[in-house]
Amino acid sequence: MARATRRDADKPKGRPPRRERNFAAIREVEDGEFRRRILAAAAEIFSTRGFAAASIDEVAKRLGATKGLVYHRYRSKGELLIDVCEDGLAAITARLAAIAERRERAITRLTGAATLHAGDVVERLDLHRTLAGATCGTAAASLAGDEVAALAAIAEKRQAYDAIFTRLIEAAAAERDLPSGRDTAMLGRIFVAALDAPLTWPPATIAELSGKSDLIARQLAYFAIRGAGASDTTLMEEFSR
Amino acid sequence: MARATRRDADKPKGRPPRRERNFAAIREVEDGEFRRRILAAAAEIFSTRGFAAASIDEVAKRLGATKGLVYHRYRSKGELLIDVCEDGLAAITARLAAIAERRERAITRLTGAATLHAGDVVERLDLHRTLAGATCGTAAASLAGDEVAALAAIAEKRQAYDAIFTRLIEAAAAERDLPSGRDTAMLGRIFVAALDAPLTWPPATIAELSGKSDLIARQLAYFAIRGAGASDTTLMEEFSR
Repeated sequence: MARATRRDADKPKGRPPRRERNFAAIREVEDGEFRRRILAAAAEIFSTRGFAAASIDEVAKRLGATKGLVYHRYRSKGELLIDVCEDGLAAITARLAAIAERRERAITRLTGAATLHAGDVVERLDLHRTLAGATCGTAAASLAGDEVAALAAIAEKRQAYDAIFTRLIEAAAAERDLPSGRDTAMLGRIFVAALDAPLTWPPATIAELSGKSDLIARQLAYFAIRGAGASDTTLMEEFSR
Repeated sequence: MARATRRDADKPKGRPPRRERNFAAIREVEDGEFRRRILAAAAEIFSTRGFAAASIDEVAKRLGATKGLVYHRYRSKGELLIDVCEDGLAAITARLAAIAERRERAITRLTGAATLHAGDVVERLDLHRTLAGATCGTAAASLAGDEVAALAAIAEKRQAYDAIFTRLIEAAAAERDLPSGRDTAMLGRIFVAALDAPLTWPPATIAELSGKSDLIARQLAYFAIRGAGASDTTLMEEFSR
């Protein structure tokens, strides 16, 4: 909530609302809950249609709102993409950082972090697909210059997010719960990407697994922790919690 | 080569070439090498721009060819996408099947299969990104009805490809080189997706790792085989070859 308020304060003050007479509608646009609905609809449209093919019209139609209500807040499809990514990444980063800072063994924090990330991917698949499209460079091809810069900043934040996993792997190796002496930067990249597995699963698989997100998150985390080199004893301890 | 010939035979016979006088150009279009260049350029454009935003014009420009030369073979962007995916998937499936049928322990074949797939992802990243976009449902939103059906057939072939890994995991478990009694369908899905990790890596990471594709393929395969539950002894045996 605090974040939404800050963002509103950052908006250019001089810009008048498109339809001054429609006060009720504008008030609704300013409302955090409506913003959340816009971002969810946008992630859904961007991930199913592809960013380049998607339009603000479709996002509005998905919401049952008029185009004007969405354009009141976002001047372009690129601005909307950036807000989807910033908002989604900020939310999961805050939760990940909280786990990383716990006073527990590193392997326990890494297991918690992996389970959190995998569960978020399964539950907010549209968001994570949109984010992947934005950070792997595809979306940038259809954006304006300042939006490309904003997207580059998001890609950096995503790398900082991934680096939390790398540091937890290093800490767990220092505590002898994972093998040491390895290229941890590469291992961290592979580790997070393995948790991102559902991004490439076809619609039939996703449909088949619906309602099993906790189980899938656990299986993904188990695979990744094992892949990083945890012993059977460590796996048993960490996954019997 | 045999495959290209079969496809040509399948083409409707009655359709006249766009520019009958340009015989040399048409002969070049029919040439397998030129088809290969079209498919590589298309994969590059589709993966960097996103399928929906890409155009046949851009593919032709990337090739330094005229639009007509590409349209002579492909009536639409969708047809081109389908040929990119069919051709790319057929090539890697043939290589994977050859490994899967070897007279070796299943864990050795699984290691070979994983290394092959990971190496192919790193070396033909554009193709694999295009394929992932096609099979995870995004591209279908901007295709005609018969193209959607062709894409569904490709998604099925991709699932059959992934199932080769699942069967090798099952065989390795039966030979006691991997733990048994697990949900191997899910494990197979996670296993292949982990090897697909480079799909979501940002351009900076891809650039940084350029020229190290063998090393990356080995690290990805090692992570996945370990994630599937191979013991340290098995890993040492398989990766010291």
